[in-house]
Amino acid sequence: MTPRGKFITLEGGEGAGKSTLLAGLQQYLRERGVELVQTREPGGTPLGEAVRAIVLDPVQRGMSAEAELLLMFASRAQLVRECIEPALAAGKWVLCDRFTDASYAYQGGGRGVPVERIAMLEQWATEGLAPDLTLLLDLPVATGRARAAGRGEADRIEVEADSFFERVRAAYRARAAAEPARFRVIDASQTPAEVLAAAIEATGHLFGVAA
Amino acid sequence: MTPRGKFITLEGGEGAGKSTLLAGLQQYLRERGVELVQTREPGGTPLGEAVRAIVLDPVQRGMSAEAELLLMFASRAQLVRECIEPALAAGKWVLCDRFTDASYAYQGGGRGVPVERIAMLEQWATEGLAPDLTLLLDLPVATGRARAAGRGEADRIEVEADSFFERVRAAYRARAAAEPARFRVIDASQTPAEVLAAAIEATGHLFGVAA
Repeated sequence: MTPRGKFITLEGGEGAGKSTLLAGLQQYLRERGVELVQTREPGGTPLGEAVRAIVLDPVQRGMSAEAELLLMFASRAQLVRECIEPALAAGKWVLCDRFTDASYAYQGGGRGVPVERIAMLEQWATEGLAPDLTLLLDLPVATGRARAAGRGEADRIEVEADSFFERVRAAYRARAAAEPARFRVIDASQTPAEVLAAAIEATGHLFGVAA
Repeated sequence: MTPRGKFITLEGGEGAGKSTLLAGLQQYLRERGVELVQTREPGGTPLGEAVRAIVLDPVQRGMSAEAELLLMFASRAQLVRECIEPALAAGKWVLCDRFTDASYAYQGGGRGVPVERIAMLEQWATEGLAPDLTLLLDLPVATGRARAAGRGEADRIEVEADSFFERVRAAYRARAAAEPARFRVIDASQTPAEVLAAAIEATGHLFGVAA
């Protein structure tokens, strides 16, 4: 029987260097012989990408926190069923750019949606699926925003105030502190090479029996 | 103080004549001096219409029941906050083509999503808002499908099997039986004029004090 794959998620605010790390980590894992599926949230499926377009569209500035949360979980419910679970069951590893922790950080911390609602949605939308490892790229808000500023027009979430992103960061860090075995917090003010090295080191235990 | 408006929803399967009734009822209410907002689900807001496009798109045939339910409630949460509640508070009446009962019928009855999940989502997505009157256009499935068949390409939901629509109909009727004070079941095999007359008769009690 094929051993089940490992599920790694990447979390962090704007400008934390997720894309750079994703590329490096993907290359590393493939070189180690891991059959890898890379995906993202919201997105990763036809439904999820359509939801992503709505969620990031600056035209949707009137979106309520409740609708935003439900859209995120619609994308997630689909991604788990259509992509992540089948891949893990087939022995592939999955590297996902954001997952449920992002809902706790952005909709919970950022927008003040009660944590119990998020937990309730998580319970049945993801059917108990949790990452084996979550890499949190942590960075002061001002640093991240300065980095992200050069990227062209801001999407509906990027235009939020600093206070919003401070709450997002605090929520991420609180989740990491509450689940130290799953989380690895990486100082994202380091160089990309240092960030990648820290991430690779953190994946070490995932190679246990199967390596 | 402006008296709160009344909230009327229209429910029913494919080909039941909702659009025809909506037009007639709208005209009647306006002639009676009601300031009316007409809307629909999914849809009715920029977010809802974008969600509607996803939900009906035949390309999205892999959509899970869970994702579908969450999309419907995302549209609904937005519609309640952006459109229905402000209109009712301003004393306007709202006439909505489908509402929460449709989730119980289509995602609950049709797709087998547990009723408790739908009730849980309803509780906080609609913040306790319930229609003052729900008109259920009831019709044998075969009759409805024969009527709807001439309308051009079928959307993602219209292509479901008869058994799906039988479950939808049964769930609608069960809800009507459970809440007779709110529901009026109208035999949709009648002529459009008869259906309209029945609907108008059902709105009578809404004009109580304010008429």
